[in-house]
Amino acid sequence: MYGAVIHAPGDVRYEERPDPTIEQPTDAVIRMVATCVCGSDLWTYRGLNPIKRPLHMGHEYVGIVEEIGADVQTLAPGDFVIGSFMASDGTCEICRAGYPSRCVNVVPMGMLGAQAERLRVPWADGTLVATPGEPDAELIPSLLAASDVLGTGWFAAEAAAVEPGKTVVVVGDGAVGLLGVLAAKARGAERIVAMSRHADRQQLAQRFGATDIVTERGDEGVARIKDLTNGLGAHSVIEAVGTQESMLQAIRSTRPGGHVGFVGVSHGVSLPGDLLFSSEVHLFGGPAPVRRDLPDLIDRIWHREIDPGLVFDLTLPLSEVAEGYRAMDERRAIKTLLMP
Amino acid sequence: MYGAVIHAPGDVRYEERPDPTIEQPTDAVIRMVATCVCGSDLWTYRGLNPIKRPLHMGHEYVGIVEEIGADVQTLAPGDFVIGSFMASDGTCEICRAGYPSRCVNVVPMGMLGAQAERLRVPWADGTLVATPGEPDAELIPSLLAASDVLGTGWFAAEAAAVEPGKTVVVVGDGAVGLLGVLAAKARGAERIVAMSRHADRQQLAQRFGATDIVTERGDEGVARIKDLTNGLGAHSVIEAVGTQESMLQAIRSTRPGGHVGFVGVSHGVSLPGDLLFSSEVHLFGGPAPVRRDLPDLIDRIWHREIDPGLVFDLTLPLSEVAEGYRAMDERRAIKTLLMP
Repeated sequence: MYGAVIHAPGDVRYEERPDPTIEQPTDAVIRMVATCVCGSDLWTYRGLNPIKRPLHMGHEYVGIVEEIGADVQTLAPGDFVIGSFMASDGTCEICRAGYPSRCVNVVPMGMLGAQAERLRVPWADGTLVATPGEPDAELIPSLLAASDVLGTGWFAAEAAAVEPGKTVVVVGDGAVGLLGVLAAKARGAERIVAMSRHADRQQLAQRFGATDIVTERGDEGVARIKDLTNGLGAHSVIEAVGTQESMLQAIRSTRPGGHVGFVGVSHGVSLPGDLLFSSEVHLFGGPAPVRRDLPDLIDRIWHREIDPGLVFDLTLPLSEVAEGYRAMDERRAIKTLLMP
Repeated sequence: MYGAVIHAPGDVRYEERPDPTIEQPTDAVIRMVATCVCGSDLWTYRGLNPIKRPLHMGHEYVGIVEEIGADVQTLAPGDFVIGSFMASDGTCEICRAGYPSRCVNVVPMGMLGAQAERLRVPWADGTLVATPGEPDAELIPSLLAASDVLGTGWFAAEAAAVEPGKTVVVVGDGAVGLLGVLAAKARGAERIVAMSRHADRQQLAQRFGATDIVTERGDEGVARIKDLTNGLGAHSVIEAVGTQESMLQAIRSTRPGGHVGFVGVSHGVSLPGDLLFSSEVHLFGGPAPVRRDLPDLIDRIWHREIDPGLVFDLTLPLSEVAEGYRAMDERRAIKTLLMP
């Protein structure tokens, strides 16, 4: 089969890779229906994560089960499935506590490489969720989004304790930030402030439920948020970038006792303890427990309550995966969907 | 009147200071019954906070109301009162949300200086709580503890989401850490691990409810905690020191999805974002909202349910305040109580 391999920063190739097979009795092999490029893939693409040898890429996927291992109980060949970007056994104490992406037997799906025609999924019962039936084609982008980017925005809103009546700020206008807006709306936020400087992303944020747009950053951005919140800061702030600037923006935009949910994969961040102490905000984040939320997210998508697939503004054949990366790297696309 | 003034690191003097008076209609003036030295006072005593001019010291206090301003509603001269280390108006949005120590009109009581014969208390209605009557002398140390050190340990346990059935680790065996043990016990923790190397503090921790003592620190300390928790880390960790080492100890001892409550005043702490992201722990702390919890804490002390006053292992006349600091600085005392 064919799939994406990165050889060096900026050098993604569509090339032949070994066909995946059942290696463990808890595995499934799926035929890919759709996959995509994640903002976190760009860290590697831009050389910010080391590439010591050619790497398979991709960790977001929807597909049809082709084969299951002998111990798989909940799935059958032919099922249409969505899985988390982290494979999890679903049975350990951490999974049961609601943090499957930190399962004691976790397997990052990026290591297996979902930007490919087929994919082996470890811990299939703990990782994949089947849809109620064959989905309409128009639902596929939204179901694919649930695999990571929607689940991550959803978790960010939960980590930021978004509730009815609250004012929410979203730092970052990438696909995760935009779906953080959607999640905040779904959780009943009263006011949702999207911090964005890009007209197309501002429009999508508004479509997802943003009530205010703030284009300023840094001290000016904090001042604008304070202006909008009686000088106090927001109740809840979603951080969806992962840089020092975005983390400080988030913390400083939150009122005492408020909540910051951070999901941007952290790069070069160092948080001063005295800021954390004096700001007195709840800080929580990390890899989103997508698998826990998948049944709920699939249900909402299935019933057309949410339309997270709107974050895909470029669709390409999987064979053009290199262009999919380039378009996101150059900010010509918010998020690229790839069809085998 | 007389009170404590620090002139330079290590130089605390008992000297004449102006008598406090009612300055605002929301003020009260109290006659001190007991005050004490806080671990955070030692930061200043040791020169880690700058001393640009002579400073009044002390922010923990119980006393008798002598005089009230025209707008004070809930108190009368003669009342025995306990107040928070932070004066708060009790009416702003932040106070009402449960964070009075971050009141928009907050006044740190340390600026007024509670190690003195008398004390002006701003926002008396929002800051002070009267006891149901004249307390027995034996209750005074515990009531004094409620002013800060108990309230801080109590908040740490709440911030660490201590609940029945959980395993709790307490980093720091000072008075706050020890009362974090007491608070964890009161909240129903199943197992309470005190990290302590001092026999007298270990004993007090056990008296307050610690079930295990860990003397190791750093990597070895983390490994010991993992050994005690199926390799996962504790559900809840209380950080009661404020250094880089103690914060990392706390975060690394917590399981994914667990909670760190930090109340040690932060000095020189810088937290790596990738550790926060990958550890996936809830992090919350800052100045404890003591005033919110005072009615509950007073009630528990009044009914002899808790005995936090045990942290005072040295009692001196207020005039010997300098010795009170020395004894704590040299670790001859856990906490010094001062009687005018």
